[in-house]
Amino acid sequence: MPDEMSWPLIRSRGEGGASTHLEASASETGALVIGILGTGDFSRSLARRLVASGYQVVVGSRNPHRSVALFPEEAEVTSQMEAASQADLVFVAVFPEHHSTLLELKPSLAGKTLVDVSNGLRINKEGPSNAEQLADLFPESFIVKGFNTISAWTLQVGPRDGSKQVYLCSDNQKAKSLVMQVCRRMGFIPVDMGQLSSSVEIENLTLHLFPSWHIPILCTVSLFFFFYLYNFTRDILLPYITAKKSAFYKMPIKTVNVTLPSVALVMLALVYVPGLCAAFLQLWRGTKYKRFPSWLDGWLTRRKQFGLCSFLCAVLHAVYSLCLPMRKSARFTLLNKAFKQVKDGVQDSWVDEDVWRMELYLSVGIMALGLLSLLAVTSLPSVANSVNWREFSFIQSTLGYCALSMATLHTVFFGWDRAFDPAQYHFYLPPTFLLVLILPLLVLLGRLALFVPCVAQRLRQIRRGWEESRHIRFTLPDDDRRNGLEDVSNV
Amino acid sequence: MPDEMSWPLIRSRGEGGASTHLEASASETGALVIGILGTGDFSRSLARRLVASGYQVVVGSRNPHRSVALFPEEAEVTSQMEAASQADLVFVAVFPEHHSTLLELKPSLAGKTLVDVSNGLRINKEGPSNAEQLADLFPESFIVKGFNTISAWTLQVGPRDGSKQVYLCSDNQKAKSLVMQVCRRMGFIPVDMGQLSSSVEIENLTLHLFPSWHIPILCTVSLFFFFYLYNFTRDILLPYITAKKSAFYKMPIKTVNVTLPSVALVMLALVYVPGLCAAFLQLWRGTKYKRFPSWLDGWLTRRKQFGLCSFLCAVLHAVYSLCLPMRKSARFTLLNKAFKQVKDGVQDSWVDEDVWRMELYLSVGIMALGLLSLLAVTSLPSVANSVNWREFSFIQSTLGYCALSMATLHTVFFGWDRAFDPAQYHFYLPPTFLLVLILPLLVLLGRLALFVPCVAQRLRQIRRGWEESRHIRFTLPDDDRRNGLEDVSNV
Amino acid sequence: MPDEMSWPLIRSRGEGGASTHLEASASETGALVIGILGTGDFSRSLARRLVASGYQVVVGSRNPHRSVALFPEEAEVTSQMEAASQADLVFVAVFPEHHSTLLELKPSLAGKTLVDVSNGLRINKEGPSNAEQLADLFPESFIVKGFNTISAWTLQVGPRDGSKQVYLCSDNQKAKSLVMQVCRRMGFIPVDMGQLSSSVEIENLTLHLFPSWHIPILCTVSLFFFFYLYNFTRDILLPYITAKKSAFYKMPIKTVNVTLPSVALVMLALVYVPGLCAAFLQLWRGTKYKRFPSWLDGWLTRRKQFGLCSFLCAVLHAVYSLCLPMRKSARFTLLNKAFKQVKDGVQDSWVDEDVWRMELYLSVGIMALGLLSLLAVTSLPSVANSVNWREFSFIQSTLGYCALSMATLHTVFFGWDRAFDPAQYHFYLPPTFLLVLILPLLVLLGRLALFVPCVAQRLRQIRRGWEESRHIRFTLPDDDRRNGLEDVSNV
Repeated sequence: MPDEMSWPLIRSRGEGGASTHLEASASETGALVIGILGTGDFSRSLARRLVASGYQVVVGSRNPHRSVALFPEEAEVTSQMEAASQADLVFVAVFPEHHSTLLELKPSLAGKTLVDVSNGLRINKEGPSNAEQLADLFPESFIVKGFNTISAWTLQVGPRDGSKQVYLCSDNQKAKSLVMQVCRRMGFIPVDMGQLSSSVEIENLTLHLFPSWHIPILCTVSLFFFFYLYNFTRDILLPYITAKKSAFYKMPIKTVNVTLPSVALVMLALVYVPGLCAAFLQLWRGTKYKRFPSWLDGWLTRRKQFGLCSFLCAVLHAVYSLCLPMRKSARFTLLNKAFKQVKDGVQDSWVDEDVWRMELYLSVGIMALGLLSLLAVTSLPSVANSVNWREFSFIQSTLGYCALSMATLHTVFFGWDRAFDPAQYHFYLPPTFLLVLILPLLVLLGRLALFVPCVAQRLRQIRRGWEESRHIRFTLPDDDRRNGLEDVSNV
Repeated sequence: MPDEMSWPLIRSRGEGGASTHLEASASETGALVIGILGTGDFSRSLARRLVASGYQVVVGSRNPHRSVALFPEEAEVTSQMEAASQADLVFVAVFPEHHSTLLELKPSLAGKTLVDVSNGLRINKEGPSNAEQLADLFPESFIVKGFNTISAWTLQVGPRDGSKQVYLCSDNQKAKSLVMQVCRRMGFIPVDMGQLSSSVEIENLTLHLFPSWHIPILCTVSLFFFFYLYNFTRDILLPYITAKKSAFYKMPIKTVNVTLPSVALVMLALVYVPGLCAAFLQLWRGTKYKRFPSWLDGWLTRRKQFGLCSFLCAVLHAVYSLCLPMRKSARFTLLNKAFKQVKDGVQDSWVDEDVWRMELYLSVGIMALGLLSLLAVTSLPSVANSVNWREFSFIQSTLGYCALSMATLHTVFFGWDRAFDPAQYHFYLPPTFLLVLILPLLVLLGRLALFVPCVAQRLRQIRRGWEESRHIRFTLPDDDRRNGLEDVSNV
Repeated sequence: MPDEMSWPLIRSRGEGGASTHLEASASETGALVIGILGTGDFSRSLARRLVASGYQVVVGSRNPHRSVALFPEEAEVTSQMEAASQADLVFVAVFPEHHSTLLELKPSLAGKTLVDVSNGLRINKEGPSNAEQLADLFPESFIVKGFNTISAWTLQVGPRDGSKQVYLCSDNQKAKSLVMQVCRRMGFIPVDMGQLSSSVEIENLTLHLFPSWHIPILCTVSLFFFFYLYNFTRDILLPYITAKKSAFYKMPIKTVNVTLPSVALVMLALVYVPGLCAAFLQLWRGTKYKRFPSWLDGWLTRRKQFGLCSFLCAVLHAVYSLCLPMRKSARFTLLNKAFKQVKDGVQDSWVDEDVWRMELYLSVGIMALGLLSLLAVTSLPSVANSVNWREFSFIQSTLGYCALSMATLHTVFFGWDRAFDPAQYHFYLPPTFLLVLILPLLVLLGRLALFVPCVAQRLRQIRRGWEESRHIRFTLPDDDRRNGLEDVSNV
């Protein structure tokens, strides 16, 4: 639906016809009066949506005359007391700190269902939620928590692809069912979260700021600082201190361009470490029935975030590398080299080994980037939803290890024979690529170890429920290939 | 579901079992006979889908013997009169201009529900819709408008991720409920659009061609023409006219590469202008209860389109820039410079300032591009749906302003000290980057102004309902942080 | 919902309240006891989900004491016999080879609904499915096949955007309705696949590995090998054999960079060939009612895959091209050229034609890449779902042909006048770009042929049902613009 066609004008509400035994008969829609207390953007969008879904809407405002212009004509705008009396189901769309101002409506609202759509200001760890406080204020009403994760914009344009979930919870099953029915009619998908005590989590849902990304981003930034300082010290600072050679111009681009691939490769290896740890842990323990340590569980759930951070660094590294020939510093260097070559009378300065080294590590690097792009694209929610788990596992596991191998090979070719050249060990500090290669090579060796037939066989047995202590084969559920630890199974 | 597995063979329809009181009991599904008038691709796909959903389907064709091969075996293909008699619900899948040929079926269709699935040929601004005309032809049937936005392909492969919305409207509530039930059983999500008078808008839905993109694209193209002509005049035309210097080779790439970033930066600034306008308007008026002018409303809803146009120009600018060293013109220039350097006997042509200028503006430019990419990725529908509004606001608002600052800094570094060099003012025309910097700097200044404590405090008060004229704090709905104008609140 | 908040703690299940006549009343939810046989990851996630959706869950395990720690507290973990007795609906979450171990439960399970969630190990072409074998083991129970495409991870975090489809089939309509109701309550979308005989296809669904991609990828790889060998022979092998000129350093990057664009352009042309074939076939036959040959049908459904393979090759070609100036080989070549220019005393080596050729083909190439990126982005599922078919057709058909024209023009500019230069025909082999241009030019000519007024008119008539043999205009369904062959109609 086009963006600016928010919600078309509905001429008049459908009249209630004869009752049918089909779900949500016309008479029930016609009979159910929905009230909204509050007149802000959310109320407005909610009113428009309810009216478009065929409900009779009455809005309670402290200043009906001023607010009536803002609401669709089918909705009746009246005083809060009037709205509370008429309505069967009431959306309480006011700030939580103003819930107490509604106390005068308590008699009118007794026995009715109130939906608390408020959000909190900060993440609530203890203490009652807004919904629980509302329940304390209105003990004779049935409080349902919900709709707080839906923005007025989404109410207005409709769920983008009919897939916006609405989290509901309530102590009263009947009230919850009623709100779920209204929710479905509006085009949303209600998700039952249980009792009203779940309202704390529902209210916290909107306050999280990428919680699963905190650790991966922290890792990335720490690795970046470490490698940048290492390269800076080795390539710029120590030469300056010892030989007064000023190479500070390298700081914005060249040094960053040695740091980014280091971070990318280490982060990519960190994506596959938890899978290997889990496999070896199961082999060590001889069983799959003991739970993983919580740090390993947490790491396993964040593998996608580690991978995407690695991909971002890899792409930036590619862009920085492509910028290298464009720089004035590269041009001056080239012109000076040409001058020197003419002065030395060297007709052909071609060095075969240098040429081959660069051709090889460039081509392998591009292949690695291509594979990482495939992984990144399949991480998009819509693409991930359209592939089955065998396909997803193939991409993330098989192609993922190919990408890791390619990236490692790219670094090995870049290093070429410099690991064996003492001159590269400036100030006894090894070249950066050697530090970077440690973890990926360990990961690849670990994965190869799991290919060894007896090891693979034992792991397969354990995954099918064999336990070292008991030597009894259990009747196991069909889970190995369909659960989220599939990646672990495949490592 | 794999693409080529359109719809698997259904051996035989489920027989109607005992009635249950659960939704859509077997007997009702078994008892409801659905008819389709018409035999094109849409009818075929619809028949397959209805059969797979467990309905009894009868297809009415003018030439049953020829059409029967095209339809699934479970569907009965017969004459139109026969189909109209047997069916309880009839899909009228014929061209609107042929609706009148069905008049002979009027007696058989009396009292039944007809679903008009036709589309119009052009956007209908006045005049009756196809559905309304069909209703005039069949006054004793109940017309439901729907399914015209669903393609035969979607019917065939199933809603891609169960999220395809079907827009329905009808004057008769019972008929509409029946069609909604059928719709759900087929796996779609029905959206109630009200009375049959909404059918005009439903029919127009499929004829829009990116309506919210018209203005942003027009802006982009206009800015592109303006800056291209400015640069062409300044760098190519005037030097040719005055000094006969032919630099026309610059037209395809170099001049485009000065134009694209100008367009990108101005468009990016235009993303944040409406938010600032809205904030200052609220501060000026002292209230948030007056509606914005419609041009501002329209601009606020198109911010995403402005941003994506800016991103496209920024990416193309990056690609063009990366192409610069590859060109033969760059190589000839470099070779000629080398020749000149040798002839002048200059051993080292290094200029520190030139080097630093380029290192700085390149690195800041890459950072700006990285941030803009993050913004573009979170604009994808599936990604936008998976983040909550706090996260979305953080990306689009906070990171967005960072991207704008980076891009402005990139342009400032590029300019370096050329603004103060009279030689840069060719023919009294200032360098392009000066023109470009005006709007972004204004935007950034305006945003900084909103950070000033008293201004920020006042705006927060106004957003919470404080009104200058009344000095009364109203009970306000909990809306500030959850509505689509959240970006406006955060500017 | 944040990833690590898998499923919040549900304090206690909602008690069953008074029955309502709304769908799925509280009493029914409260009365329905769901059993799970099996204790793996899938069972665990299923138990958590069912508990969160308000059901009473009892898990049957061979070793209840050991398993109870793994399950949520609200679920009762007991012996398999006990669970089978208590439950009304039983999820059989055990390996298919262990189904027979449940035979002792047959009496307890008689008359109840069993859901088989197992997957097969390999694609099943004949022979009974797991569900059919289970039905043979438990003839007095009602077997429903379903949930095998849902991973434990999806059960745990909830359907990502409420859109995960669950494929169900059963011989018993009432059992199927019950499972569909449970499915909806859990937040999934049930898709009715018919009778239990469809279970073979449902079980095969999870075993496909990108079935629609096999042919396009095979095409891409074959074309790559062909063009690579052609270029290798022409540019490296034959010069080495005849003139001992060693250019093997070109193999990793330069030769690949001539191969990739060839593959990309041919694959892009292959996207539009089937549409033209279909149009000309309809013109030839004079009717649209004969079915296309199956190879054409298959090709038409794989056009998106061909396009995406082409896009991948085009992007890689762009990256390889941008890498060219960075290589040591390019630098050595440039330095040697500078040396030569100085030795020859040439002050200005500028060649206008070379410069213009490169400026033109580079700029046109970048435009083609930009257009292809737009096509690729609109192929993403979420973006494709948000545009209507007129917009989708505009992008894929109109912009698609623009992209093909741009890419062809890029190749023509690259070729410049080399087609007429005998020196380019090394060893009587024409330059690669000539081979590549054949198919795209044919496609563009074919498309232009369809613009000729009389041809376009005839095609339009045929699409509206005119048949050459009959000269009768039929009443046709409204399908031309809304079906999946729309692209064919527009070619």
